[in-house]
Amino acid sequence: MIYADNAATTRISELAVQKLLPYLMEEYGNASSQHKLGFKARKAIACARKQVAKAIDCEPHEIIFTSGGSEGNTWVLHGKSRELCERERAHLITTSIEHHSVLNACKNTDVLDVTYLNPDSDGRVSVSNVESALRPNTKLVTIMFANNEIGTIQPVQQIGEMLKSHNVMFHTDAVQAVGHIPISMKKLKVDFLTASAHKFNGPKGIGFIFIRDGIAMPNYIFGGEQEFGLRSGTENVAGIVALGYALEECVQNLGEDTITQQLLVKMTIEKLKKSIPNLIINAELANRLPGILNITFENATGEAMMHLLSLKDICVSAGAACNSNKGVPSHVLLAIGKTESEAKNSIRISYGRYNTVKEVDEITSAIKSAYFKITQAKST
Amino acid sequence: MIYADNAATTRISELAVQKLLPYLMEEYGNASSQHKLGFKARKAIACARKQVAKAIDCEPHEIIFTSGGSEGNTWVLHGKSRELCERERAHLITTSIEHHSVLNACKNTDVLDVTYLNPDSDGRVSVSNVESALRPNTKLVTIMFANNEIGTIQPVQQIGEMLKSHNVMFHTDAVQAVGHIPISMKKLKVDFLTASAHKFNGPKGIGFIFIRDGIAMPNYIFGGEQEFGLRSGTENVAGIVALGYALEECVQNLGEDTITQQLLVKMTIEKLKKSIPNLIINAELANRLPGILNITFENATGEAMMHLLSLKDICVSAGAACNSNKGVPSHVLLAIGKTESEAKNSIRISYGRYNTVKEVDEITSAIKSAYFKITQAKST
Repeated sequence: MIYADNAATTRISELAVQKLLPYLMEEYGNASSQHKLGFKARKAIACARKQVAKAIDCEPHEIIFTSGGSEGNTWVLHGKSRELCERERAHLITTSIEHHSVLNACKNTDVLDVTYLNPDSDGRVSVSNVESALRPNTKLVTIMFANNEIGTIQPVQQIGEMLKSHNVMFHTDAVQAVGHIPISMKKLKVDFLTASAHKFNGPKGIGFIFIRDGIAMPNYIFGGEQEFGLRSGTENVAGIVALGYALEECVQNLGEDTITQQLLVKMTIEKLKKSIPNLIINAELANRLPGILNITFENATGEAMMHLLSLKDICVSAGAACNSNKGVPSHVLLAIGKTESEAKNSIRISYGRYNTVKEVDEITSAIKSAYFKITQAKST
Repeated sequence: MIYADNAATTRISELAVQKLLPYLMEEYGNASSQHKLGFKARKAIACARKQVAKAIDCEPHEIIFTSGGSEGNTWVLHGKSRELCERERAHLITTSIEHHSVLNACKNTDVLDVTYLNPDSDGRVSVSNVESALRPNTKLVTIMFANNEIGTIQPVQQIGEMLKSHNVMFHTDAVQAVGHIPISMKKLKVDFLTASAHKFNGPKGIGFIFIRDGIAMPNYIFGGEQEFGLRSGTENVAGIVALGYALEECVQNLGEDTITQQLLVKMTIEKLKKSIPNLIINAELANRLPGILNITFENATGEAMMHLLSLKDICVSAGAACNSNKGVPSHVLLAIGKTESEAKNSIRISYGRYNTVKEVDEITSAIKSAYFKITQAKST
């Protein structure tokens, strides 16, 4: 099987599994317990928190473990934003290409006025776009670090600096970015950052949120006041340990992995462009995540392409996994100006650490043959 | 090491580990993906949902996987209760011995009037207690199925029937009960039930909530609309699979495990009563969970006892794990009429599937020697 859907989820690293297993099996203490087994669990969590802090260049106490990206995003956009509206109706700025955890949380709040910024045709939001949308009651801006469908990386550093000068809080959904591009929270003027382990070769069901020191955050999940009293619930010790090692490993391999994945993407584009007419590379001019490639075909739906590839044991995606069963065209591709039919005629190939040059050959020839099968069937 | 703190968390079963591993490692697809790997993940989740439904006698679509008990409780008491208050200020009834995920969610809501019922000296809440507390605007009652510190099982069936006749919704935090006593959702008039895998030999970081068919539930975590659109976030497939098998195994072994654990508790009481003067068995007259034993000593704090036992590699608890690091006396023991000093002089022994008769001998002699060490040190 060839797995080229790493933007949906990644294969867990061997190191992460190896480090996780003892805490899944023998060291099963509740981290709140005051006996030896509890102490070992607490120590393991503290170690993972340090690994994460080192990986994104922040302090350990700024890291709060969650159940994943959707929880983190909802916490900020449904939990924190409610608090921001206590004194006056607040205004929030986001983009039309966010993940649905951000978009749906924004939609479901009755206390916020929301501005959805449209990106340019490569998926970029500029600092001046954001600045011109500011209002006197703008309390929070949330802009994803890198897009999960087209890979576009936003100018988070510059947006953060501008917002700081206006005294507006800044959240970034970095689920797709953490572990894949260098991130320093000491350099970025970001107040909240969301991440999820299964996007960087960690397990599913565990993630973290960075909350800058000194920024108040209301509870969203109540209980035994774990995680410095901010996020309750018996800690998923094994998951947290795996997250820590997975992220450490990603950051250590970042340079090499980036070069490899950029090469695989470049090769894929070259090979496909040679044989498939009028192929469009989406967000072609943007600064993109190294492994993500979103392509629009003439006259072949992404769904049909994906199914034909799946029959050959090749996993790619038509749109983001989270929306892939709904049959609706990608909101991201529509937002960057694609027509509905172009959006439906697109697939996302996303490479990860375990992909090889040989796989690119197989994927590209499978895509070619799928494409011609579909278009020839149509023309007869 | 002897682990007798199964009410805090349990050792994961070998079967659960064995079933989890393939989904942690090779079958790592995102359950929303439309390719083969996604399909396998979806199938595994559907299978686990059926196992859970069979275990608690309900329909599979009434089971929604969550990150654990605190999330489930908060979802009902912070999410659903807000919705219940849309038209008028709502009244909620709970007890003073609930888990902090219930108590803190109740405390942190600004839209609810809350009545906290006090149980009797064995931790029991009667149907008539609940009925007399009802008001015209009572929208929701939440009463834990079985208490995590003293083990008292509440008359959930009778309370549910009474509430049904008054048309009031009923939630039960069954985190401590699921997998440990027989539960049939077809028989119980319960609308919402919360559970957590790590309390029944499953992994940490995964749980479920039962939502009765036809009962509306607002989203609490937003995103890709997983779990029938009710709980977003990429599914923790490995955790869900392990939860399903762990619960199935618990229910299959329920009869045998209950008899064994009741025997271990009985032996422990007999052995301790013989040698330690004025020992109090808390909630002695209540219908209790088979494995939980809460004891109050004369003149020896639970904390000191627990630490001396921990030095001998024996794990028991002074109060619930979630509050064990706060040094405050148990709110449960205070609520059943213990003095502050009695509450502080208590430990919880909680047996699970892996405890043995031989361990009871070791635990009881360790408790005796710890007790006399502490009391003799005091008297000299």
